[in-house]
Amino acid sequence: MQTHTGSTQAPAAAHGHLNTPFLMVDKPKFIDNLIRLRSLIAPFGVALRPHFKTIRAIEAAAYVLPDASSPVTVSTLREAEALAEAGYRNITYAVGISAAKLPRVGALIEQGVTLTVLLDSPEQVQAVNDYCAAHRCTIPALIEIDCDGHRGGILPEDPRLIELARLLADGPAQFQGVLLHAGESYRCYRRQGLQEAADNEVATALRARNALAARQIPCPVVSVGSTPTAFSYRQLEGVTEVRAGVYSFFDLVMANIGVCELEDIALSVVATVIGHNRDKGWVLVDAGWMALSADRGTARAPVDYGYGQVANAGGAVMAGMQVLSANQEHGIIGRVDGHPLCFEDFPIGSRVRILPNHACATAAMHDQYQVFDGLHGTHEVWHRIKGW
Amino acid sequence: MQTHTGSTQAPAAAHGHLNTPFLMVDKPKFIDNLIRLRSLIAPFGVALRPHFKTIRAIEAAAYVLPDASSPVTVSTLREAEALAEAGYRNITYAVGISAAKLPRVGALIEQGVTLTVLLDSPEQVQAVNDYCAAHRCTIPALIEIDCDGHRGGILPEDPRLIELARLLADGPAQFQGVLLHAGESYRCYRRQGLQEAADNEVATALRARNALAARQIPCPVVSVGSTPTAFSYRQLEGVTEVRAGVYSFFDLVMANIGVCELEDIALSVVATVIGHNRDKGWVLVDAGWMALSADRGTARAPVDYGYGQVANAGGAVMAGMQVLSANQEHGIIGRVDGHPLCFEDFPIGSRVRILPNHACATAAMHDQYQVFDGLHGTHEVWHRIKGW
Repeated sequence: MQTHTGSTQAPAAAHGHLNTPFLMVDKPKFIDNLIRLRSLIAPFGVALRPHFKTIRAIEAAAYVLPDASSPVTVSTLREAEALAEAGYRNITYAVGISAAKLPRVGALIEQGVTLTVLLDSPEQVQAVNDYCAAHRCTIPALIEIDCDGHRGGILPEDPRLIELARLLADGPAQFQGVLLHAGESYRCYRRQGLQEAADNEVATALRARNALAARQIPCPVVSVGSTPTAFSYRQLEGVTEVRAGVYSFFDLVMANIGVCELEDIALSVVATVIGHNRDKGWVLVDAGWMALSADRGTARAPVDYGYGQVANAGGAVMAGMQVLSANQEHGIIGRVDGHPLCFEDFPIGSRVRILPNHACATAAMHDQYQVFDGLHGTHEVWHRIKGW
Repeated sequence: MQTHTGSTQAPAAAHGHLNTPFLMVDKPKFIDNLIRLRSLIAPFGVALRPHFKTIRAIEAAAYVLPDASSPVTVSTLREAEALAEAGYRNITYAVGISAAKLPRVGALIEQGVTLTVLLDSPEQVQAVNDYCAAHRCTIPALIEIDCDGHRGGILPEDPRLIELARLLADGPAQFQGVLLHAGESYRCYRRQGLQEAADNEVATALRARNALAARQIPCPVVSVGSTPTAFSYRQLEGVTEVRAGVYSFFDLVMANIGVCELEDIALSVVATVIGHNRDKGWVLVDAGWMALSADRGTARAPVDYGYGQVANAGGAVMAGMQVLSANQEHGIIGRVDGHPLCFEDFPIGSRVRILPNHACATAAMHDQYQVFDGLHGTHEVWHRIKGW
């Protein structure tokens, strides 16, 4: 992991004019995180198709996507529409398609976007084929493969894989290949488990590709990915692309999994101290779940960070200090390491930063990112794409 | 509780043109809920100061607030600014004030809004007094009283109550009175516990008021409230106003507490079935925590509803069906009552409605409400006020 010096941090004075709570991005850390995964995947000779679901801000796209033809993954058609408007042309919508959304898919394809959809049922294949036939268009489609029982997808040995691929390949839609997501890797907290999850993701993908090859069905795309496995591949022979999203910001879940350090986390919520409860050892801040999200993704992790790890206004992690509980607009901060809390470190009106359990969830609570670059002394605002 | 017939529900066909997931309000239920609390509080002869934090939509304000002078509570200055722009003039900002926010408070007061702030520390009193002195204005302030150790506030017997009230009363700010919130009542699941929490809230408020009276400090405002206690007061002698928010929509937390029935819940997320996993008994829908929120407010309640209770597209509750888990854009629905799931009830492409654990949290994930009135056949869109 890269080493950050205090100098990448925006000084507290740089954001004093912004009312709290707000969402802060440490831009040098964000860019370091992007470079780190890109450098890790490049030697494998496969494409990186970053997942835009974490960031969802067009101002950030240029950092994540080298050019207009760069592959990108989205979790909503709204993201795809915003990226298309910004000129991006190679987009995979990685949530199972429904018939009612096909007119929006069709509109993007008509604009010249390669918008690839995902599916795993005959009903979805039928809907896509029917839409293509009715509108004389070609929608590329991937079949979702289940590698770990996490949510959707079909097993590589399931005969439905061949049936669906044939229905697509023979129909007006276009069969593009297979897509897997090792969602269960989020529960791996050791290097060995991560490598096994990564190996399994790749091996399952190849079993699907080989099953198709045995029936002479070409499978140009073999797409795998999740942030935990993206940092754990030992080989990617036969895979064509890797997807990952949360690595751009990182978070406390990923720190638990071991693919980043607390110092790599580029996202935080800045909050103001609005009260003390000396009897209980509580500092009250003006960031509750509305600013932090209600995500308790570290609840069953080796280190449970409550509703977030506390850092000081300059970004330095304050060991043992967490958000113990969160109401809508109140967070209660306290120590979890048995030491007494020093209230003088948290005067009323002073600011703290809260590192998120889950960057995707915390970012989703905000309309804007306040992006600071302490190295260059810059401040910019990125705007979240909202909705579906 | 009122009885709803199926006829208040918008038929599924009424929303077929909207892409899922989206947030739906059943307007007749919403209005019934508003009437129910108003009717319950009116006989006590105290004001109802609805909390706008749940709804946060100006289009809804006219239903909640009879006229421009109606009292209203907010959780953010952004709500106060939007309400002021819409003409409302009597607003209490019920989150501890910080010095950095006072220019926005001052701007509202200059516009003629009675914007009352909340505080519980000498630093906050000093900041408000200093601001008033520097800007020759008068900011009304309430002192937060702690009635149940939930988060902030000071105890009524704490000598700081008198000190702070004196500093306000003698300074350029204006001491208005005391405010309490029985936050711990959210953990009461029996009528007796709720009544005790309500009694305690009122009794604690009166102890604070009496402590002030004993020092000849007038206390014109005695503000209490939370949705659980608002439905449980036995007497309100000496109280001047009641605050509550979530009662307007109700949710599964409130159903657990016993202040509403599932049929009273006016808010739901409409989702589309995008997959089946017959081996696991799972139906996958396109609403994950991004649409539902990650709030697990019923986790320790008598009935744990997972990430939400499933209803059919017409709004009828499907007993035993819950959202078992939620990823960003995927929800996994299944049975929790041991019965086998009938997949024919959930064809791919069909719709379900998910009742929320916590209406405030679920609504916060959306920019808009799709508001249907099945009785009058109308559909309108309300826009959420976002941010702080």
